[in-house]
Amino acid sequence: MTAPFSFELDATDGLARAGQFTTPHGVMNTPQFMPVGTLASVKALDPEDLHRLGATMILANAYHLRLRPGDEMIRTMGGLHRFMHWDGPILTDSGGFQVFSLEGLRTINEQGVEFRSHLDGSLQQFTPESVMRIERNLGADVIMQFDHVVPGQTEAGLARVAMERSIRWLERCRVEFDRLMREDPDAPTPVQALFPIVQGGIHADLRRESATAIRDAADWVGLGIGGLSVGEAKPDMYAMLDVVNEALPTDRPRYLMGVGFPEDLVEGVARGVDLFDCVAPTRMGRTGAFFTTTGRRSIKNAAWRLDPGPLDDECSCAACSRFSKAYIRHLFVSEEILGLRLLSLHNVHFLVALMRDARAAVQAGTFQGWSRDWLARYHSRSTSS
Amino acid sequence: MTAPFSFELDATDGLARAGQFTTPHGVMNTPQFMPVGTLASVKALDPEDLHRLGATMILANAYHLRLRPGDEMIRTMGGLHRFMHWDGPILTDSGGFQVFSLEGLRTINEQGVEFRSHLDGSLQQFTPESVMRIERNLGADVIMQFDHVVPGQTEAGLARVAMERSIRWLERCRVEFDRLMREDPDAPTPVQALFPIVQGGIHADLRRESATAIRDAADWVGLGIGGLSVGEAKPDMYAMLDVVNEALPTDRPRYLMGVGFPEDLVEGVARGVDLFDCVAPTRMGRTGAFFTTTGRRSIKNAAWRLDPGPLDDECSCAACSRFSKAYIRHLFVSEEILGLRLLSLHNVHFLVALMRDARAAVQAGTFQGWSRDWLARYHSRSTSS
Ligand SMILES: [Zn+2]
Ligand SMILES: [Zn+2]
Repeated sequence: MTAPFSFELDATDGLARAGQFTTPHGVMNTPQFMPVGTLASVKALDPEDLHRLGATMILANAYHLRLRPGDEMIRTMGGLHRFMHWDGPILTDSGGFQVFSLEGLRTINEQGVEFRSHLDGSLQQFTPESVMRIERNLGADVIMQFDHVVPGQTEAGLARVAMERSIRWLERCRVEFDRLMREDPDAPTPVQALFPIVQGGIHADLRRESATAIRDAADWVGLGIGGLSVGEAKPDMYAMLDVVNEALPTDRPRYLMGVGFPEDLVEGVARGVDLFDCVAPTRMGRTGAFFTTTGRRSIKNAAWRLDPGPLDDECSCAACSRFSKAYIRHLFVSEEILGLRLLSLHNVHFLVALMRDARAAVQAGTFQGWSRDWLARYHSRSTSS
Repeated sequence: MTAPFSFELDATDGLARAGQFTTPHGVMNTPQFMPVGTLASVKALDPEDLHRLGATMILANAYHLRLRPGDEMIRTMGGLHRFMHWDGPILTDSGGFQVFSLEGLRTINEQGVEFRSHLDGSLQQFTPESVMRIERNLGADVIMQFDHVVPGQTEAGLARVAMERSIRWLERCRVEFDRLMREDPDAPTPVQALFPIVQGGIHADLRRESATAIRDAADWVGLGIGGLSVGEAKPDMYAMLDVVNEALPTDRPRYLMGVGFPEDLVEGVARGVDLFDCVAPTRMGRTGAFFTTTGRRSIKNAAWRLDPGPLDDECSCAACSRFSKAYIRHLFVSEEILGLRLLSLHNVHFLVALMRDARAAVQAGTFQGWSRDWLARYHSRSTSS
């Protein structure tokens, strides 16, 4: 593994792992949840909020930043870390998911994808090579390969085409990535890590084939698992995790992309996943939904009108330690921005703290019981109210 | 003056004053700018932001809070301080300005004002007595009388009617206020201060008559000056301040209501004003405008696209100490909430810091030169860009 990147496993408990992932911008404990700042801002939150609630690595998105304000502009401003004032690790997603979601606005061939910007309709082209250059300019610590993403329920034939193309594109990404590391040493983060992405839909044989081919292709710093939590049934997702994690090297961090509901995080850790990200906690916060240890709730519920208690009795976040549900409900009903901010802050804190607790359970050797009890309690009253 | 309220003048320089106003929830330096949290939240900011930038007393609005979530609800939750988690002093405006702005939706008579809620059209009545009860329930340290507000350019006849009615209503407010202090000792803030409001439009004789009548009516803890910055010319406003401050007692704080542009604050201090409030800094922040020491600017200006500098070179706020204009412009263009928050934070900080500087100049005996230089620089490039 290229210095300064390294990954140490402190403890394991069944398939669950407690580790430490070292990046050019610091060390992070795993398992960990990574908040998403698509446009170089985790929506409604301040970088300081994220530091305080214990987030370490955050995400940004190459597709969105390429279109606005532009990766070259961000490089001119010193790269993403300086631009958004985040001195911890950053990971950029390649934009594969966004580009392939542009139904009707894009043309796919072996070379890459042509698409029209969702902002101004301008014609754009993403290839494995161009995406590597974009992510070089942005300067994240970890950058994801450009892959061919298909919907969750895609049948095996098309899923195979996309999976095999993703592996061919991975090789092109790797060649361009290596060239840039050699020939563009003045990039904002000189040493980055390229993560491959395992694809294959909900087809166990494709997933196994993808994971094996990727594992054997190079000594990756870490590996991504993509194309899950995109519409498939939860048991299918969990089955795929079982297959993939069995095939992946155990001494590298595994990152399950775009998965961020509490129950999925716990189930993922139980299957050997180390890193998670999702827009859910901030997006939910903007619609009034919040996590509690006994399930999801909505702040709009009239039952909270005079409730002096915090969003969650056991939460120590900057919302719960100061404000009542009654106040946050008033803010939300009155469309005060502070309401969105407090709910987003609580939700992100909830997932970061959940992964801290999972890590402690792995280290204590109590993960099996802890996760069973946690899930039972979370599902005990699952109706959203 | 009723304990624990007190007002000490540390220094004067011409008519400008440096003082300390003591309230049940703490001591504040004067002159001071007070951020406005109409609905029990200073828009886009966190109470912690306000503490950190040096705000001491903040405002809330009796009209808005009466309609939503209700003053009785807030009392049930322990009063405004506990509800919004602000342990510093709070002032509530009576709602006179809001009620009288409801053209066509309200009926005025000597008893009070009947109006329809702007939220649900329900019929409401405000009288001097009912407003005192609302402000008692909210529990601010300082509460404003219910007054009859007229537009800035109102002719002398109607301005006199409103001014004289405001004085009669002040007496009714005082009687009810005294009764509540005696008979409702369990209110959230047992000892509050009632401020009268000087009215009279832009008519010097009416202003003088109003100020004199109010001064002679009781030993007020402090006094408000209302009905300015509502459409009249700036020289008219300054002339009214000269007249009013000459008539008001010098040993009490004077609060100029709803005035919050930097130049008006400096001109107000020069005429003996101690307290200011305005929604301008947060409202402007939401439209992309920000204050600098050389005038107002807009973050939307394309000139800032690659600007690595802070909003204002001399500002030490939490936005300027961390983020470039290029980043904040990106956030604003991308409609990221953090953009509104940073601009609001900077603008509020700008006014709070301006009043800190004015106070220091009064104490140093250099206010005349300081204010002349400050205004010359602020007006040196007044085009908004
Ligand atoms: Zn919380
Ligand atoms: Zn600033």
